Amino acid sequence: MEVVSSNRMFEGMQQVVEHRSEQLSSDMRYGLYLPDNYEDNRASLLWLSGLTCTHENFMTKACAQRVASELGLALIIPDTSPRGENVPDDPQGAYDFGLGAGFYVDATEPPWSEHYRMRSYVLDELLPGVSSEFGLDTDRVAISGHSMGGHGALTLALSNPGRFRSVSAFAPICAPTQCPWGQKALSGYLGDDRNTWRAHDACALIEDGARVPEILVDQGLDDDFLAEQLKPELLEAACERAGIDLTLRRQRGYDHSYYFIASFIEDHLRWHNRRLGG
Amino acid sequence: MEVVSSNRMFEGMQQVVEHRSEQLSSDMRYGLYLPDNYEDNRASLLWLSGLTCTHENFMTKACAQRVASELGLALIIPDTSPRGENVPDDPQGAYDFGLGAGFYVDATEPPWSEHYRMRSYVLDELLPGVSSEFGLDTDRVAISGHSMGGHGALTLALSNPGRFRSVSAFAPICAPTQCPWGQKALSGYLGDDRNTWRAHDACALIEDGARVPEILVDQGLDDDFLAEQLKPELLEAACERAGIDLTLRRQRGYDHSYYFIASFIEDHLRWHNRRLGG
Repeated sequence: MEVVSSNRMFEGMQQVVEHRSEQLSSDMRYGLYLPDNYEDNRASLLWLSGLTCTHENFMTKACAQRVASELGLALIIPDTSPRGENVPDDPQGAYDFGLGAGFYVDATEPPWSEHYRMRSYVLDELLPGVSSEFGLDTDRVAISGHSMGGHGALTLALSNPGRFRSVSAFAPICAPTQCPWGQKALSGYLGDDRNTWRAHDACALIEDGARVPEILVDQGLDDDFLAEQLKPELLEAACERAGIDLTLRRQRGYDHSYYFIASFIEDHLRWHNRRLGG
Repeated sequence: MEVVSSNRMFEGMQQVVEHRSEQLSSDMRYGLYLPDNYEDNRASLLWLSGLTCTHENFMTKACAQRVASELGLALIIPDTSPRGENVPDDPQGAYDFGLGAGFYVDATEPPWSEHYRMRSYVLDELLPGVSSEFGLDTDRVAISGHSMGGHGALTLALSNPGRFRSVSAFAPICAPTQCPWGQKALSGYLGDDRNTWRAHDACALIEDGARVPEILVDQGLDDDFLAEQLKPELLEAACERAGIDLTLRRQRGYDHSYYFIASFIEDHLRWHNRRLGG
């Protein structure tokens, strides 16, 4: 792992780290914010970004570092897909499949299955690698994300009980088996057998018995993708049936952008920090 | 003036406005943040950006809107040069002259003199136009900026006594007549008579008698441009001789980026707000 840039921001360092990923057969970069104010074995938040993003969007636009610095919380910010000339992309260059759109699953369909293994990359390679390299506490990790990354945060937390102390999301794709973005991605990466999709759909996971104690979600009511792609009402119904303590905040006037994320990231960081024992 | 985008952020709206500039003979865009929390005739901060920037950098990367919203302060964020196919650019496409590098002067040399009139644009067209269109108080305007825009903030405030209530800067080009960026820009836009340059150099203006009551400057000590281009020690000496109350904060570890600006913009906004009667 090589630190390729390092900028001081608030009381800490915003770094970009490059490494070779075995899971993705790809050279990858991720963002890492390390506050000065920390103990050894510090807690961290894993942030999963949305469609079209790289590791950079959250680093430069969300201003999460201010509160992370205050709380002594590290921020780990992966890219959203494998990268490089040898990595196949959507033949039409669509924004919602292929590069920038890994959907946090391990693809089983060729030609995607060789590189598109973002789930295993994040869980089994990036998190252990970063934690070991930079002295993070693997027992105190929170997870959050936006849109496709909100889907990633919910599904990774639900399907790995105990791995994350807390989970939240901004405008998540709540039921990818029931929306165009999700159906395109899941059929492309996993094939047409819809039974294989359920492990990558937060609502289906909950229906099938997966549990987390509580979830925090912020959703802008002026989000253009709300009705067709995001469907928070399905998550609300699934949580209600399952007895999961969901706090779903419908935010009047806010849209799908990082302006929305920046406005509420402080609430999420403080919420996670309380659950991380901070 | 046409609002071309509007995103809710914190308790206010981040807008982009398009208009035809007579001064620049160019269609221009600027950023405007309007907090909900304001009185009629609200105070504002004019932010001038640095080399290569557009109106977007400060909007998306500085996260100034959080505190601006709390204080009820509008943010006015112009572009850094005229734009459009008919506007000449540096023949070699240099980043430090031409497009993205208007230097907040009115060019007198052809071919630049037709469009490159950023000083008159900001002072005589944009500020009055925005104030009238959006109900801002022209008596309560603060000015700040970064690098080339820090130069702009200092020189516009010094040469327009009473026009701005307060002036601050991040890593400003303090003495453009004495550094490569400034010498290239001033000779290109104004010609080789160095006497004409002095009106666009903060240190020379102060030597020639221009005064403001006080100045706040933040400067990162890990800024790659510090010694060759920025020279805050010259501003410090000029202010000391002139009896100007300069607060120059040398910030250890910080560089020239927006990570640095985001880290200290809150201090500047609160400092300005006290002087704006807020």
